[in-house]
Amino acid sequence: MKTFKSIKSLRKYILSLKKEGDSIGFVPTMGFLHAGHIELIKKCVSENDISVVSIYVNPKQFGEGEDFSDYPRDINRDMEILENERVDILFYPENSEMYPEKQLALVDVRGLSDVLCGKRRPGHFMGVATVVLKLFNIVNPDMAYFGQKDAQQLVIIKKMVKDLNVSVRIKSIPIIRDDNGLALSSRNSYLSNNEKIIATQLSKALFKAKSMIENDNILDPLKIIDFIQERLKKTGGINIDYVEIRRLTDLSESGIIDRKDCIVAVAIYIGKVRLIDNFILGEI
Amino acid sequence: MKTFKSIKSLRKYILSLKKEGDSIGFVPTMGFLHAGHIELIKKCVSENDISVVSIYVNPKQFGEGEDFSDYPRDINRDMEILENERVDILFYPENSEMYPEKQLALVDVRGLSDVLCGKRRPGHFMGVATVVLKLFNIVNPDMAYFGQKDAQQLVIIKKMVKDLNVSVRIKSIPIIRDDNGLALSSRNSYLSNNEKIIATQLSKALFKAKSMIENDNILDPLKIIDFIQERLKKTGGINIDYVEIRRLTDLSESGIIDRKDCIVAVAIYIGKVRLIDNFILGEI
Repeated sequence: MKTFKSIKSLRKYILSLKKEGDSIGFVPTMGFLHAGHIELIKKCVSENDISVVSIYVNPKQFGEGEDFSDYPRDINRDMEILENERVDILFYPENSEMYPEKQLALVDVRGLSDVLCGKRRPGHFMGVATVVLKLFNIVNPDMAYFGQKDAQQLVIIKKMVKDLNVSVRIKSIPIIRDDNGLALSSRNSYLSNNEKIIATQLSKALFKAKSMIENDNILDPLKIIDFIQERLKKTGGINIDYVEIRRLTDLSESGIIDRKDCIVAVAIYIGKVRLIDNFILGEI
Repeated sequence: MKTFKSIKSLRKYILSLKKEGDSIGFVPTMGFLHAGHIELIKKCVSENDISVVSIYVNPKQFGEGEDFSDYPRDINRDMEILENERVDILFYPENSEMYPEKQLALVDVRGLSDVLCGKRRPGHFMGVATVVLKLFNIVNPDMAYFGQKDAQQLVIIKKMVKDLNVSVRIKSIPIIRDDNGLALSSRNSYLSNNEKIIATQLSKALFKAKSMIENDNILDPLKIIDFIQERLKKTGGINIDYVEIRRLTDLSESGIIDRKDCIVAVAIYIGKVRLIDNFILGEI
């Protein structure tokens, strides 16, 4: 695996590969890789001539008081994983390389960025869209891979790519869970063992809600939301940020659940740790 | 010259040229070409293997009550000019091709977009930055050419390219003027003969101000601004929008004129017609 910290030399190398006709696949990450990332990476490696992974904890997508400085990092372990997965290129830039001067140009995907997680985290998705577009422009990939756990991010990136005519195909993979159903996240490392047990209630509530929609044909979003909220409230130690049901295509609300275009999304706090989870009905 | 209305077929054609190693130069325009555009086009043709010109009157950069529907258009004359200049490719899309669905992703170059012309035209530069980024992503040029008459636009595009790591080099050409000194603009076609005579006072005031800075060493911006304002006020039929002196690099204001980093910019109304002009000291 080749590791680049410089945009210029990465660009030069990728250009030389493209000239030989190689297709480029790209997985942008913030590192501290888990089995969810590895699924993305495996798909990327298998579908492209050259696979590029970036590890960059982007300060611009963390708000004030959020966990930027505490965000878990382990570059040596990450590099070992990437070598094992036969990734070709790691892009691992410093902040001074990504933001050499005050970043004035920002990408705002309006309407999609201020709901769900965007409500609690103002500016977060602008930071995400901006850095992802920067990374796309640096890596120039044919395909890029994102996890469905960050479903809102995925919807926003797909819309950005479409609206700004970026020539990259976005692919996604379903949420990867541990044996207890907890959606994998780098932030799970913040949780104590006891908190991890509490956290399993989140996916349990979602699985049950999914069955209510799919098997029991309950299509009133309020009934499903109520069920999830009650279930989570009964569990000690969980503070609910939101439980929402929206259309997958444009994140708009609907009076009735469309089982071919729907996301049920939840964000909770356990102590100071914010966790998100969701399920999707339909194509993303 | 090949004319494309479809993004997909343009992309395919340009990709085939790039594979053969051709360099791509690009001049984005709103059409109704004048000698200023032609200078840009000549430079583009001479410096690149393949030259692409786009003609697209972008509705998203016109505000309410502005002249979108009246904006002058003459595609047949424009195409003749492009053929004469041996342009290789014309991109001439419909609105439905550029904005097939509601555009949610917008590029905002903060701090540079809400001063000077941006103050009078809220959202204008967001519309400009967004459509230029779209066009860059569609055409994928090595070089792109812009006129210094729209100096603020030039500063914003350059910053966007840097901040978003777009791999295109931006080149500019100085303002082209008619025999009376009036800066060429498609909007000059709105002026009556009498208004054109009035309009020449704008460049005359700017030329004199330039001499005051360069030859008389007057570096107090207020003195220069005062001079220009007085001179324009004396001319009947001119309403001043703004007269401002700013640093060229970041459009910030300065207590003293830096003769290596300065733009003196003016916007006026003659009747309903808005005209802009400027001079630049330093590199852009």
